[in-house]
Amino acid sequence: MRDISSNFRVTREDLARFMQAVLKAVGANQASANAVTRALITASRMGTDSHGLRLLPHYLQALKGGRINGAPNMRFHQRLAATGFLDADDGLGHLAGYTAMEHAMEMAAEVGMGAVAVGNSSHFGAAGCYALAAAERGYLGMAFCNSDPFVLLHDGAKPFHGTNPIAFAAPVAGEAPYLLDMATSSVPWNRVQQYGAIGRELPDQVAADVNGQVSRVPSEVAALLPLGGSAFGFKGAGLGGMVEILSSMLSGMQHGFQLPHGRARYGHAAWSRAFFLAMNPDAFVDEGTFARGLAEYLADLRAQPAAEGGRGASTGGSRMALPEQTRYRRHPARCRQSVSLCRNC
Amino acid sequence: MRDISSNFRVTREDLARFMQAVLKAVGANQASANAVTRALITASRMGTDSHGLRLLPHYLQALKGGRINGAPNMRFHQRLAATGFLDADDGLGHLAGYTAMEHAMEMAAEVGMGAVAVGNSSHFGAAGCYALAAAERGYLGMAFCNSDPFVLLHDGAKPFHGTNPIAFAAPVAGEAPYLLDMATSSVPWNRVQQYGAIGRELPDQVAADVNGQVSRVPSEVAALLPLGGSAFGFKGAGLGGMVEILSSMLSGMQHGFQLPHGRARYGHAAWSRAFFLAMNPDAFVDEGTFARGLAEYLADLRAQPAAEGGRGASTGGSRMALPEQTRYRRHPARCRQSVSLCRNC
Repeated sequence: MRDISSNFRVTREDLARFMQAVLKAVGANQASANAVTRALITASRMGTDSHGLRLLPHYLQALKGGRINGAPNMRFHQRLAATGFLDADDGLGHLAGYTAMEHAMEMAAEVGMGAVAVGNSSHFGAAGCYALAAAERGYLGMAFCNSDPFVLLHDGAKPFHGTNPIAFAAPVAGEAPYLLDMATSSVPWNRVQQYGAIGRELPDQVAADVNGQVSRVPSEVAALLPLGGSAFGFKGAGLGGMVEILSSMLSGMQHGFQLPHGRARYGHAAWSRAFFLAMNPDAFVDEGTFARGLAEYLADLRAQPAAEGGRGASTGGSRMALPEQTRYRRHPARCRQSVSLCRNC
Repeated sequence: MRDISSNFRVTREDLARFMQAVLKAVGANQASANAVTRALITASRMGTDSHGLRLLPHYLQALKGGRINGAPNMRFHQRLAATGFLDADDGLGHLAGYTAMEHAMEMAAEVGMGAVAVGNSSHFGAAGCYALAAAERGYLGMAFCNSDPFVLLHDGAKPFHGTNPIAFAAPVAGEAPYLLDMATSSVPWNRVQQYGAIGRELPDQVAADVNGQVSRVPSEVAALLPLGGSAFGFKGAGLGGMVEILSSMLSGMQHGFQLPHGRARYGHAAWSRAFFLAMNPDAFVDEGTFARGLAEYLADLRAQPAAEGGRGASTGGSRMALPEQTRYRRHPARCRQSVSLCRNC
């Protein structure tokens, strides 16, 4: 007997039609419904299942309850030729993200680069979606966002940062973009829940109990460790801090630690701040130079030999192979130099 | 008996005078001598000893041998209002770095942000120096650079990236700037050499032998693992890739893997590419908003409790405590949220 939960298939078009219909039924306008549909399908196709289709019910519930504004009047305040602020009017973070990146690209077309800080927004799904949106149009794209706290500082006892992701994408001539989309913790919170549900031990050095002591037992876990674990977590914590400063301080909003912890984080407006940056790669050196250089780099990268037997085999599903050899490649945007972070962001 | 090597002290002024004199004696012009002196003293004062004073002899030798141009004619090509390229004319990377950041800040003053890619440059010391230079003038600063390869890809067998550092600094009202300065490997190459010299085992998951298998024995080590180790090294490798793309491709130069490996890397011009970015924090939201937000964030950060006993005690010198509790604080620019990376970049 085939398992319908793993073998069920639907065309992208039918799925999009369904998602738009239900989003509109709970008050999303066309632009908002389009943005959520695009972001969730993109995330699921690139394998970031944690931030893909499974989140739809959360957003529907938040729209229904009125905690997110389905028909926001987002206002962009351009401050200087390369910078601006987007007030997302308590709307969906996906619409805010695509809108902000659109403004950043317009500025990058004019002056070479542009950046937009976003406030009064809500959960935007996977950061990679917005970096990709830039790269698909020929720009280098970067996206950052904070959240309520559930990651420890290095040697800290209590959660302070969110998983504060970093996404970076670059256009590749004739191919899907290069993409990095990573949390600044080693694993996402839902990995803890998933392992708990199947009675499995967590990898070492990724989570801690209520006293900040490392624990591999999901039921004991109260917080995540920053990337780098007990020994080198100051790097993950530092990256998380950089993301916090770009997201919260440049948007003039509260930082993540001031937000209530552990509530239904997908369902609240004004709980998310973000920062988006676009650069025109041909605004630094002669046209075409960037594209040629990146093609050469990717060719060398893909020619690299793998370590015999790998090094990551013991990590419970996190092992990533070299590009073109990875098993996470439902979408071509993955699989660039072992940085498809589908299970980790 | 006191050990002169650890107790010898010299005033900053005398040290600077000495450094400038010897640099000028081997052909550095005033601007180059000033830049090297400023960068090396800054690195040593912030505790990045690996990239501090100890590098002076390398630079002197390279200048003497003519491999680095002590009197370069660096040319800045502004491309658009926010972007440009600096041809460093085979000069010292320190002068190139400060010069590039100066141009980036000028653009940020005009249009809110600016970025400069640098080519035909040489080793610039610690990336944090140039991010700090921006923050000291009220800008957010970022600096990136690549090098010849000695870090493995995730599950890769051979070195591919350099330690490709990321530096980020932000101005803090009435205090030294916030600073993150980190390699995208867990440890620097000189840690391996240092541990080898004192017969000590390396921490786990930071280095590998010639076949790409993890090794803690310094004499066996042929390469470094990316940050995250065997389990999560795809994050470190991905960050290293981002740095490579920003540094090499935006400057139109060869990427790190195409550079000869393991030669005297401080002593060669044209072996280093870098990327610098400056942003005016008041070009996003109302003036003063950023400064107030960052002060609140740092106050919350410093009030965080430490995990009892710490988590990093077993890591052989890498343990970092919470801000204000760290033992690495020779310079106030350190000690922001456990991200003083003095031993690791």
